[in-house]
Parts: sequence; C-alpha cells; structure tokens
Amino acid sequence: MKFRNFKMVGYVIYGRGSFGQLDEILAPQRKGDAPMIFFVDHVFENKPALTGRIPLRGKDKVIFIDVTHEPKTTYVDRLRDELTAEFGEVSGIIGIGGGSVMDMAKAVALMMTNPGSSADYQGWDLVKKAGVYKVGIPTLAGTGAEVSRTCVLTGPTRKLGMNSDFTPFDQIVLDPELIKDAPVNQRFYTAMDCYIHCIESLEGTYLNAFSRSYGEKALELCQEIFLRKDNWDDDADEKLMMASYAGGMSIAYSQVGVAHAVSYGLAYLLGTKHGIGNCIVFDKIEEFYPAGVREFKQMVEKHNIDIPQGITKGLSDADFNTMIDVSLGMAPLWENALGTDWKQQMTRERLRALYEQF
Amino acid sequence: MKFRNFKMVGYVIYGRGSFGQLDEILAPQRKGDAPMIFFVDHVFENKPALTGRIPLRGKDKVIFIDVTHEPKTTYVDRLRDELTAEFGEVSGIIGIGGGSVMDMAKAVALMMTNPGSSADYQGWDLVKKAGVYKVGIPTLAGTGAEVSRTCVLTGPTRKLGMNSDFTPFDQIVLDPELIKDAPVNQRFYTAMDCYIHCIESLEGTYLNAFSRSYGEKALELCQEIFLRKDNWDDDADEKLMMASYAGGMSIAYSQVGVAHAVSYGLAYLLGTKHGIGNCIVFDKIEEFYPAGVREFKQMVEKHNIDIPQGITKGLSDADFNTMIDVSLGMAPLWENALGTDWKQQMTRERLRALYEQF
Repeated sequence: MKFRNFKMVGYVIYGRGSFGQLDEILAPQRKGDAPMIFFVDHVFENKPALTGRIPLRGKDKVIFIDVTHEPKTTYVDRLRDELTAEFGEVSGIIGIGGGSVMDMAKAVALMMTNPGSSADYQGWDLVKKAGVYKVGIPTLAGTGAEVSRTCVLTGPTRKLGMNSDFTPFDQIVLDPELIKDAPVNQRFYTAMDCYIHCIESLEGTYLNAFSRSYGEKALELCQEIFLRKDNWDDDADEKLMMASYAGGMSIAYSQVGVAHAVSYGLAYLLGTKHGIGNCIVFDKIEEFYPAGVREFKQMVEKHNIDIPQGITKGLSDADFNTMIDVSLGMAPLWENALGTDWKQQMTRERLRALYEQF
Repeated sequence: MKFRNFKMVGYVIYGRGSFGQLDEILAPQRKGDAPMIFFVDHVFENKPALTGRIPLRGKDKVIFIDVTHEPKTTYVDRLRDELTAEFGEVSGIIGIGGGSVMDMAKAVALMMTNPGSSADYQGWDLVKKAGVYKVGIPTLAGTGAEVSRTCVLTGPTRKLGMNSDFTPFDQIVLDPELIKDAPVNQRFYTAMDCYIHCIESLEGTYLNAFSRSYGEKALELCQEIFLRKDNWDDDADEKLMMASYAGGMSIAYSQVGVAHAVSYGLAYLLGTKHGIGNCIVFDKIEEFYPAGVREFKQMVEKHNIDIPQGITKGLSDADFNTMIDVSLGMAPLWENALGTDWKQQMTRERLRALYEQF
C-alpha cells in the first residue's frame, strides 16, 4: 500500500477519575468465569492507592511486571505459559503502567491466541490471529504506546516490535490522575520521548498533513507544560497525557529520526532505557536539530533534570561497532532524518564520534 | 458513565491519492458474492473523473444519493428495502460525499441488520446490532461526519441521529484530492461547520483537555487556510481535511452551542441545510461569541462569500414559535453555551428577536 491504512484503538475514555469506570468498561468483555489479568508496573507493589482501586472480580489476578529491563520475548512467553497453565483462557489483559507495561500487555494478549514464541512475531504483520481483549492504562505519559500498533520487545536476535493490525489496544483509559505521582526525573524522560519524537517527525522527510497536525499539537503541549508553566499542576498532567496520545497518533505517517536511531544502539549494548536514552542522545545532536536541542536544554535546566554523562566511556572498539551496527540498521529512521542519501552523510566514523560524546 | 467511552473509527487512511487504494481495502471485507454498495453524492452523476475510479466488482452497485434535502428516515428505509429486495445481503456500504451522504451510508448500513424503521432508532444507544461493514469517504470537508458516532436524520417527529457505538465507520478514506473541486461557496459553508463548532466547543462549559487539544488544532487549521492564505491550493485541501477530522474528534467531550441550537430551528421549519444555516446564524450572534464572529466575518469578506439574508422575513408567529420550540429543545447545546441557568438567559422573546434578524 502506498499510504498506510492506520488501525485505531477501539475505544478511548479520557478524564480525571475515569479509571473509576474500569469495572463497567470491563463487564461486557468478561467471558464466563475467565479472568481479567491486570499487568501492573512493579513500582505500584505495596501502593494500595492504585492497586486497591483495581476492580477485581472472580478469578481476576494482578501480576506485577518487572520493568527493570525493557520487555523481553522470554518474559512474554513465560507469562503466557503461566496464564495458560493456571486459567486455560483469560477474558483479557489490562496493562497499567508506562510503555513497557503496556507493551507487555499487548504482547501477552496476542500470544494467548497465537502459537509459538513471541520472538517469531517480531516484525511487520506476522501476527495472524486477534489476541484476547486488551486495555492500556498509562501511568506515565510520553511513549505513545497507548495508541501504537507495535509492542517493542527484545528478542534473542533483535529489538523489534510485534507490528500488526491486531496489536493496538481495544480500549485505552486516559486518566490524568494516574500520572500525577510519577517521580520528576522519570516523568521528564518519558515526556521527552514525546517531545523528541515530535521534533524528529516534524523535521523529517516523511511527514504529511495528518501527522503534522498531531505532531504540532503534541509539541505545543510539551512547550506549554515544560517551558511556560512555573509549577507542575493538574492541568500539566492533563496536557501531558494528551501530548503523549497526539504524539503517538502522529507516528501514523511519520517516523522518528537521529536520536531514536542512535539511542537504539545504547539500549542494545548497555540496556539504556528508551526515555533516558533518547535524552542522553538528543542532548548532543544540536547539529541535526539545532532549535529543538536548544529548547530541550532549556527544559532540562528549568526542571533541574539530571542527564547522565560519560556512559560510553571506556567501551571497547567492539562495543562501539556493535552500537554502530544496530543504529545503522534502522534505515527508515536515518532516511526520514537525512534523506535518501543518508549513508553518505552518516558514516561509521561520524557515528563513532557521536557515540563517544555520551 | 461519568466520562463518555468514545468509540473510534476502525481504520483511517490519509493521503493524496489514497482513494486509489479502495479496491485493496475492500477486498478482505467482501463476503462471497454479496456486493459492495457505493452511495455517491448526486452531484457526481455524469462525473466520470470520480465515478470511473470506483472499484466495482461483481454485483457491486453505485447509487446516487439525492442530497437536495438532508437525510430522511423514509429515504433510509426505502434504500434498505430496495437493497434487501435486490441482493438479500450486501458486503458493505461506502458513502462518498459530504455529511449527508456519509450519514446515509451509516444509517443504511445499520438498517441492513436492525429490524423496523430507522425512525425507531433516533436517539441514544437504541441500535442493538452491528450493521454491515461501512466506509466513509468525504468529498466535502468540515462536518466531522467521518468520525462521529451519529448520523443525523429527519424523521416523522424529530431531527435526531442514530447515536450508538455501532454508528462510527469501520474505515475512513481521507483523500484531499477528492475535495479540491468543491464549489467555493459550498466548500466555505461546510468548512464553517467545523470552524463554528470549534468556537462553540472551545468557549463552552463542557470542554476538557482531550477535546480542547483537537478543537484548538482544528481552529488553527481553519484560521491558517481561510485567513492567512491568499490562494486556495493543495495544502489548503490537505489542512481542511485534517481540520474536519480534528473538529469531529473534538466533539468527544464537548458540545456545540448557540449557532447550532438556533440553526436547528431553521433546518426544521425551512429546510435550511446545516452548513449554510450555521453561517446564517453565526453571522448575527456576536453577542455570544464576539471574537469568533468577528473573525468569521473577516473570512466571509476575504473569500467573497454570500451569506443569505432575510430568510425569516414574513414568517408567521406560529412559524417563529415552531423554530423556538425546536431550538429550546436542544438543552445540552444551550447549557454548554450559557451554563446551567441558560433558561433564564435565553427566553422565548430573546430567541424570537434573534430569529427575526435572519
């Protein structure tokens, strides 16, 4: 297809306190006594303010998801096997957390009905059957995972999502109250995933009017929240949640760019997480996005954020080559950023010099 | 539910020339030899530039929809009966046109599977079964019908949509090329449906951050196209198509206001069509939306648009009372515009004086 036919999430509910409507939202989706399974970010373990509000019924179960590392195919497969052994069938999977938890929920929901390992489905349109009902409920905003058609997984041979029309959520619950207690640094790194991705897509070569309108709105919301407000307030949470949603939608007809391509190398070699990795990279690539990087630095300063430095210090040539290989493998990102002749522009030497700055 | 759980359209394809992908989009939705039925705005009769591109296969049929009047329940029922008599079952209904044609496509698609008359389903959540597969393809932009959960119909006792989660399209095709040949006045009236509805929702009392972000974007696109551009070009078509989409999405958590409430009265009594009716009203309600109406007048002037005057001249008291009754029946619109004490503010006398100005 020349233009992508973009699969939308099924239902969106947005509103402060809308999490309280989860029970009635789930009720018609329950299949007999098959349980709803709630994947919850492990930071909420022993946090009854959230977990106590999960509408458990019958055999429903809460599973805390360890997001110390980004989601792995082995973790997806293990959870699928455990759920199948314990319940046979489930009515649905509800992911409550940041991008990693939402991606785990999508992946396990798909693997409840598709045979084999999730590693078999890393790629584009390899998933052949609809998964079980799945819901995304962000507690961190910025990744856009709530509306994306992928779930990024680290597998035995690659870090790549299960991209398919079966991947988007059936339902998302956007409740700004759920993001208000995020730690300041974490909130910033995740929000910057959205900001950076807006800059990369708006300055990229792939853009059209659909993605531009979403990207501009997301960018404007980020600027309002992080530059023009002096205190973080409810309004900031509400707007950040919309920025994440709009940023995710803007991906429909755009692509990310240099920061994402380079940070994938850090993630692969060092396990650097997505949000902070993008910040570490973006901080040093003013040559590619001069205005965006300057504005980013203002945000970092205003919010007193710590961007780690020196993380590639002392790495071997082999290590640098690994990162360079992973990064140069992201051809569409480079092409979006630099145009069709990107290989002439982004040589291994230039990329090595860049990695040495982090 | 406290917050509305908003049903999204299934798939969106956006792009200049994307209409050319319709054949491959429809292919997997065909059920045996049951035909796809194309509802096409009657202005395209004898316009092979569009009709010649419709991907007809097997028993597929084009039906030109007469939009001289806005859609009536009797028209919906008759088309349903004719299709059932001729084909038994159909694979889907594709609406190619403005808001009226898209609403007809939604209504007939629903009535292919729901018994009785479409008049039985005018209201909220009265539709109990999914209709057949349905696609919306705008050739006029501004109504937002491509993403709405309603299809406005004039029935024996009321003008009211079939509002339900089964109503949104399964697929929309947003091809800016299809709107480029719209007549200048018609394009303007339809676009102003979007502009006016943005003003009404952004200045209303119902708004939240979700609807605000869409409404602001739609408004900004309208301002760019109609005030800052000196010539209509491809970019204008592309942005107008996005404005319509975003304006429609902003309705999720907002409501229209005075212009819509008042123009419903004109539509009911005089058959004034929605786009032009809103313009006729908005032109005179500076007291409610001072900045918006001033800007609207600038657009009218810049584009040399003719806003009809004197349409209520010579009407009887009974006629005025009919319009006043219809208008005051739109309680949520008035409440959104004026607050909970709207009845004190908008007396019959004040509304009569307003109607006399048109």
